[in-house]
This record gives sequence, structure tokens and C-alpha cells, in this order.
Amino acid sequence: MNRRKFFRNGSLATLGTALLHPISGAANTIKYDSKNKKAKNIIVIVSDGMSTGTLNMTDLYLSRKTGKCSNWLQLYKDNKVSRSLMDMASASSIVTDSAAASSSWGGGVRIANGSLNVSQNGEEHLPIWQKFKQAGKKAGCVTTVPITHATPAGFCINSKSRNAQEQIAEKYLEYKFDVMMGGGNNYFAPEKRKDKKDMYEAFASNGYEVVKTRNDMFSASIDKPILGVFHDNGLPYTIDRQNSKELLQKVPTLGEMTQKAIEAMKDHPKGFVLQVEAGKVDWAAHGNDIAGLIYDQTAHDEAIQIAMHFAEQDGETLIIITTDHGNANPGVIYGTEANDNFDTIQKYKHTNEWILNGIGKETSISQVKERVNYANNFAITNEECEQLLSYYANLKTEDGLYNPKHLPFKILAKIQEQHNSVGWISMQHSADYVELALYGPGNHLLKPFIKNTDLHYLMLEAAEIENKF
Amino acid sequence: MNRRKFFRNGSLATLGTALLHPISGAANTIKYDSKNKKAKNIIVIVSDGMSTGTLNMTDLYLSRKTGKCSNWLQLYKDNKVSRSLMDMASASSIVTDSAAASSSWGGGVRIANGSLNVSQNGEEHLPIWQKFKQAGKKAGCVTTVPITHATPAGFCINSKSRNAQEQIAEKYLEYKFDVMMGGGNNYFAPEKRKDKKDMYEAFASNGYEVVKTRNDMFSASIDKPILGVFHDNGLPYTIDRQNSKELLQKVPTLGEMTQKAIEAMKDHPKGFVLQVEAGKVDWAAHGNDIAGLIYDQTAHDEAIQIAMHFAEQDGETLIIITTDHGNANPGVIYGTEANDNFDTIQKYKHTNEWILNGIGKETSISQVKERVNYANNFAITNEECEQLLSYYANLKTEDGLYNPKHLPFKILAKIQEQHNSVGWISMQHSADYVELALYGPGNHLLKPFIKNTDLHYLMLEAAEIENKF
Repeated sequence: MNRRKFFRNGSLATLGTALLHPISGAANTIKYDSKNKKAKNIIVIVSDGMSTGTLNMTDLYLSRKTGKCSNWLQLYKDNKVSRSLMDMASASSIVTDSAAASSSWGGGVRIANGSLNVSQNGEEHLPIWQKFKQAGKKAGCVTTVPITHATPAGFCINSKSRNAQEQIAEKYLEYKFDVMMGGGNNYFAPEKRKDKKDMYEAFASNGYEVVKTRNDMFSASIDKPILGVFHDNGLPYTIDRQNSKELLQKVPTLGEMTQKAIEAMKDHPKGFVLQVEAGKVDWAAHGNDIAGLIYDQTAHDEAIQIAMHFAEQDGETLIIITTDHGNANPGVIYGTEANDNFDTIQKYKHTNEWILNGIGKETSISQVKERVNYANNFAITNEECEQLLSYYANLKTEDGLYNPKHLPFKILAKIQEQHNSVGWISMQHSADYVELALYGPGNHLLKPFIKNTDLHYLMLEAAEIENKF
Repeated sequence: MNRRKFFRNGSLATLGTALLHPISGAANTIKYDSKNKKAKNIIVIVSDGMSTGTLNMTDLYLSRKTGKCSNWLQLYKDNKVSRSLMDMASASSIVTDSAAASSSWGGGVRIANGSLNVSQNGEEHLPIWQKFKQAGKKAGCVTTVPITHATPAGFCINSKSRNAQEQIAEKYLEYKFDVMMGGGNNYFAPEKRKDKKDMYEAFASNGYEVVKTRNDMFSASIDKPILGVFHDNGLPYTIDRQNSKELLQKVPTLGEMTQKAIEAMKDHPKGFVLQVEAGKVDWAAHGNDIAGLIYDQTAHDEAIQIAMHFAEQDGETLIIITTDHGNANPGVIYGTEANDNFDTIQKYKHTNEWILNGIGKETSISQVKERVNYANNFAITNEECEQLLSYYANLKTEDGLYNPKHLPFKILAKIQEQHNSVGWISMQHSADYVELALYGPGNHLLKPFIKNTDLHYLMLEAAEIENKF
């Protein structure tokens, strides 16, 4: 009996769930038929520094807390996307940094860590958002780290060093990107910049709507390009913002910025391209800061929902969901208490950054106890408090990419591990291949394994833009 | 212009590589059209305890050493498989053990960690290899751990405890599985079993060909069922075997066992089912033993090649490639020396198990130095030697699932990390969702995210076997 007949005769198809217990849902045909459709718009939603465990723990966290899984994995369950593993190596290392990673997508060429679309021989590669601008589209970026940071910059500009954030701010104006929002007041405000230039004034006098608070953002006219800068450096972590009235008022969420950017660009006749970055997922991983990590990954997940809502209505939008590299490879560790331990994270009120920033040389053991108990809902021991305090007394030190104050992030994560069962391999990026999912026109172009640079050409091909620049 | 016309007119399609730099390969259509074909045979190739980083590091290792990537990821590059993320949680924990994991596939029901196809209320679930036997197929397992271990046992039998390996050996005979090969002499030999039963004699007198060496295996008749047991406990690690004349002669590789099992069952008119397990990938992860991990994952990868070679010729074989859970989430850590450090693993001659088993209370510092230098090609410091030796002097201790002698695996991995840039989150399983790939008839049934139990029903559906047992 051939397969079709077998099913028609009902043996498998009509046995009922009790007997057959069928796999939830049907075949592996992606529901969205993307072939022969052109991507008028593209939205790239990047969680920076997301190891597989970060995606997994956030999905577990949401499923166990709310009964509903992450929007990212719901797309998989609904069979709406094509997927790939992506090799993110840079020209200089099997372990990329965010600048080389974004440049691989942005310029279509692997370059050395630390640079933005400039090869070591000095050759510059035209960034993809400039290509799309030349093709007549609007182009923008929103992020939870400085808007001048590596991941947005890699789509937009060339710079030998990712650290030249003041110059990167100027280049954004030069190329007239349409919506640029995130943190980074340090690189725009005259009182913060080394050269004392007022970049806000420069953007405003070139026709930009400049906004600095959540409400200003909501009411900003969409008839002008928008610059939104809501914090000196990166935006506050999602969970710290949630527990601060002041920050709730001042700073928009990644989802809100995404919504505004889509609204501002969606009616452009030739379409738009938008990069959305949950940049502080990476910073949290660098700090082995579990509440920072999971709640900011949740913010990324909200942005997926907002972008998908638009794309499903629109029908001409390619959604790209991915990360630029692993970081710290966190995971829930086996043990009889693993479930209960992991669930304690649901009660966390603040990040480790918040905990550690509130401790100083003068802090007493009982104050440390109170602070940890308030933020994490567990009783830290005297000995552990002393361990933490020894760092403030300068008896020991910790370094870290986003740890200028040398706070004891590593030791705090080690203390927490006994209570939440989450472990970390390091405080740095990993070489792991990363998860990539595509929804919408062009998603059939994806193969199960690609190099990072392939994504550059896939975006152009999906949008049917010839690579003649 | 519509997409088809756009391409026909040649703009994108004929621009040439220089201009377009196209994505390597074409669309996301899986080359193998699996629909309306029935899986006569199924080969499930499991790497036990393989985190994403283990797959990734092995692929990097092979690519950098040989210029050719892993067979697993080559299947992705060739667009030959469908893929899924799989949630491996057990009934008792978000972090499964291998018994509950194998049972989820084997019995189609999530059970508590530690059991094999028996729920906590005592309900037994018919294991899938018994279902296939009842449907007329031959069924077997080959593994690098004891053949009575959790992963093969979960496909074959019911047992309240995974530890009842002597009884599991008897059950294999009771159900007359056709090819069972691996380690586990401890559970078959009369002088090793508590009950002193001679299980070899029992299998032989029931018509089995019983083999205990590689050459015996090669020459075993395929007209009889085969029991192959090549070591007391797990088989030696791949890299230790490669560097021992005695072991090379005595013990077959996982690929060789796979080849023999296929040969022995492939001509059966109703087809066959085979589980292939690289079980010591998990043991290596429990020991943070990088050479054990990567070289045994390579052995798994050779088994993929052998199974794929058969399946591509055969056309009626479904290949399932996966792992049962993450373990230790290893990864290559960022740093200026990451590439060179990682490449030093190519020079390793032995596992950490080999290194540590050769050290004792009487070993001198210079002997430790010599041993580490021979095995890993780096100079360990005096202080590090003293650290290691302190464990042998019983000043400190380490535990671990596969560490009965309490050897200092963790501290050795920490020492190595400075030289090979590989980090680990723990010495235990993780909750990470796992990689799953399907080739051949039935692979269209896979969705991008599934639960472990879904795979049970997918196998039956692909083989068009009604679940009426």
C-alpha cells in the first residue's frame, strides 16, 4: 500500500488521539509560502550574545511562569519559519566579537574583531543599510545599548575601530538613517563628548525629530527622521526598569522602540529595513547576570511579537531572528532541585548589576544580606557576604568587558548557582554556531547551515536588489 | 517585476559570483523528497550528552585539522535533512537523565529520571524496538558504553531502575534483539555478575553468535543474531584506543559496529531498526575531558557517514541524528589566542581519564609533568602538579557520575583551559533543547520544534506502523 492510500484508508489518520497519540501538528511544510514573493521590508531582530541556553532558559522561564512559551519558539511550533545554524567566525578568530559579527552581515565580508566593515588591509565594505538606502528604502536601528554600539553600527557605517562611537554618531547623520534609537547620550551630548560638539543640535538642524524620553518618543512626528537617545550608556536592564518608577517613565522598552520605528517607516513607498537589537543580553552574559539575561531576552521576545504582528498583516516583510554569537554558554544544571531552583528566578526583582552597584566599602554584612534577599529572595551567608565585601575592600579584583568598576560579578553568580542551578563557562563570548530563523518572503532561500556572510547576500536577494554598489 | 521574471531576466541569477557573491547553494528545498515514501528501516544515531558546543567544537576541530567539516554538518550544507530543536525534559525534571530521555523516545511517554519505560505509578510503556519487532522487523543497538546502559535499554525494555543492568541483559535475550553490541562484560560474565549466571552461554545456547573481539565481530555469521561485548564497562575512549595497539585489536569502533549491524540486518524482508549510541561523549562531558569528548564525537560522526552511505544507496531508510541532552555546555572562549589554543587539542594523545588514572599517591611532580606533556603537549607547572597530587593524597576529593575513583577531573580541566580555551559550566547535564536532524523517508514529518515524545510517534508514522500494541 502506498503512503497516500494508507492514509486515505484511514489507518493512521483516523485512529484518534488515544490510540495514535499523533505528533502535535502536521508536516514539515512551512505554512508561509515565501517563494516568488519579494521582501519589500526587512526586520532583523538580534539578541546579542545569546547562547543556545539563553534561548532555552528564557523559553523555560516563560513557559513555567505564564504557561505560554516564547514567541521565538512558538514560531517553530507553528511551523512558520525556516531555520539554520550559522557560523559566526570572524577573519581573526573562531570566536567573534559583535563588531566583526555585525560587519559580516552588514558588509558581506569577514573582517577582524574590533572593526566595522573595514578589512585589515584598509578595504571598506559598503554597509547593507547604506545599500538599502541607495535602493530607495528607509533604514533604521533600535537597540538597548548605545545606538553607536557595534551591532547597529555594523549595518550602517565603516570604522576601523568600534570604539570610535563619537565619530559613529556623526556618520549616522551623514548617511541620514531614518530611525536611530537606544542609549548613548555619552556620544551625542556636548557635555559628554570629548570634542564638545552638540550632536543633538546637529541632528535637529538637519531635520531630525530628537527625543530623549519614552513619552517624547510616542509623540514624535513620523514625518521626520527620528533620533532617540534615552540614557548615557546602555539602557537599564529590563528587570531594573520594571522596578523603578523613574525608569519606567523615562525609558521605552525594546518592543516600544520597535513599534515606533515600524510606524515611522512602514508607509514609505519603497519599503524599509530595520535592525532591532537586544544588546544587553550580551552585557548580562558578560556579567553572568541571570536576571539581566533572561528578562532582557524576554524584551527581545516582545520585539519579535511586535514585528511578527506587523509582518503577518503586511505580507511583504522578511523577519530575521538570530544572535551574533554565544556568550558564557549558560544552562540549567542537573540536580534533584533543578526545577524549583530555576523557578526562584521568577521572584528576582533586580539584576546582579543593581545588587553590586549598591554595595560599597562601608556596606555592612547585614546590609548585603538585606540587599541580596530583597533582589533575589534567598539568604546569603555571612561568609559569602564577606567574600563579596573583600572585593570592595580591594583585597581582590574582577575584570570584565562591561565591568569598569571591577565589581564581583563572577563570585555573586557562583553564590547564586546554589540557589538557581544556572552555570556559566566563562564571562566571554563562545565559538558556538548560532540559531537563525526567517519568516516571510525570502525565507525559502535559507539552508540548514550557513556562514554569517551568506546572510548579507540573502537579504539583498530576498529584496531583489542587485548587488551593484 | 515578479520574482520569477526577475530571475529569468537574469539580473540576479546571471550576475556571476564576483558581483553577486551568492549564498553557497540554492534554496531551502530539501533535496530528498521524502513524502509518500515509507521508512522500511530506521537508524537512530545518538550522541549521548552532546551540548551545542560539542557539535560545534567537533566540527571546528575537523574543519581546521582536515579541511573537511563533520559529516553531521555537511548534511546541513548539502541541504539533505530536516531539523528541529527538541525539548528533552523528563516527567521529574527540566534536566533529563539518559534513562528518561531514551524512554521518551522509546515509550512515547515522559517518565521520571532513573527509570526505563516505567511511570511512577508503575505503568509500563511498550518500548519501540519491541513494537518494531512485533511488526516483523529486526531490531538492534550498538554503543560505546555497556549495551545494558540507559540509552539502548530505553528503546528495548522496561525496568523501574536503569541500574538493574544484570536483569536488563537477561531481558535482551527474552525479547531476542537481533544485534546488541558494546561494552558491559560486567553484566554478562559469570565471574562478574552477582548471581554468577553465564549470560554468554545463555545467549549462545539460544542461537546467538557471541563475539568478544573486533576480529570475531568482523567474522561473525550474519545468519544468527549477534551479541558483542568488548570490554568490562564502557569501551575505551576513541583517542586512548587509537594510541594503544592492544585496544585497536580488541575493540571495534562505533562505525565498525554500525557497519556490522547494518550488514547483519539489511537483507531482512521487513526491514530493520538500529540504535547507534556514542555513549562516552556523555561520560567525557561528565569529566570535562575534552579529548574524550571531541574524539568520541568524531566516532559518532563516522557512524553517521556509514549509516548515510547505506541509506543513500538504499532509499528506504530514515536516519535520525540527535542527542539526548546537553552536558556541561562546553565552548571555545573568546581571547586573542583562542584559535591557536583550540588547535592544540589536535596534538592531544590521550584523555584526561588516561592521564589521571596513571597518577597515584607515589607519583612525583616530574612524573606528572612528563605524563601531561606526553598526553597534552604542554608544560604543567609545579604548583599545578601539587594541586593535582593533593587529591591523590586525599587532602581533597572530587565526585562525579562516572568518577568512582574520585580523580581530579575538574581541576585538570581548569588547568587545561588556559592552554586550549575550552570552558565548561559544570560536570552535569543541562536543560538545553537539543539538535535533531532527519534524513530520508518520513523526514518531512518533522517540525522545527518538538517534544522528545513526539519522536516515538514520528518513527511509527514514518514506518507506517499503526500504534496498536
